[in-house]
Amino acid sequence: MAFELHPQLLADSVPVAVLELCDIRLMDAAAVPWLLMIPRRTDLREIIDLDESAQLTLWREIALVSKMLRNEFHPTKLNVAALGNVVPQLHVHVIARFSNDAAWPKPVWGNLPMVPYIDEARDTMVLRLQTALKP
Amino acid sequence: MAFELHPQLLADSVPVAVLELCDIRLMDAAAVPWLLMIPRRTDLREIIDLDESAQLTLWREIALVSKMLRNEFHPTKLNVAALGNVVPQLHVHVIARFSNDAAWPKPVWGNLPMVPYIDEARDTMVLRLQTALKP
Repeated sequence: MAFELHPQLLADSVPVAVLELCDIRLMDAAAVPWLLMIPRRTDLREIIDLDESAQLTLWREIALVSKMLRNEFHPTKLNVAALGNVVPQLHVHVIARFSNDAAWPKPVWGNLPMVPYIDEARDTMVLRLQTALKP
Repeated sequence: MAFELHPQLLADSVPVAVLELCDIRLMDAAAVPWLLMIPRRTDLREIIDLDESAQLTLWREIALVSKMLRNEFHPTKLNVAALGNVVPQLHVHVIARFSNDAAWPKPVWGNLPMVPYIDEARDTMVLRLQTALKP
């Protein structure tokens, strides 16, 4: 079966980039720079469901996205998490957190107002991320 | 400077195992099997602060601990997260989550009653984890 993005992830985020393994998407929550990484493989629940070589690629891509977010936004802390209790399709959150963001120091889930970007700000953000991700 | 475990991590958890890179500790919260992995390196905040070879070791050790928790407890979902908004010393949570646990489907942080193990149950759990982690 071909890979299909889970409808909830599709609804919550917009596309940014396509890496070797993962689709990179921007969570439509303007409060913090919040990226989703979704390996384009079917029937994955856990990182350890990926074969070893794909796990390596995932970690490399997480490091790439982490460095990009740090260089671009100078966050107080990066939050990197694979939870998936609500959306079962394997996805990894990489989030730039700031000591003055609306949820700090709590995790974003359930604690951050999920206010979407205004259209222009979203476009600007996506373009900025795409540029920063270019090798 | 020699590596020293952050006092908060020391207070919240008990030792389980010492891997090549990480100390593995059991969070003293009886509600779910919840492990902490702390790389024994000084002055780390982010995973990407580790050199590339240590990052690889970290990912390998996370996979090892993840597989062990899955084999041992058959959780509904593993939660793997490097947050560190409260305790700045780099640490990774690997948590076995169940669809009937007290915080499900929310993340554990702030949503799980942090009731410690009774002494005997803690000892039994540590021994079980140590046995399961042995190669």
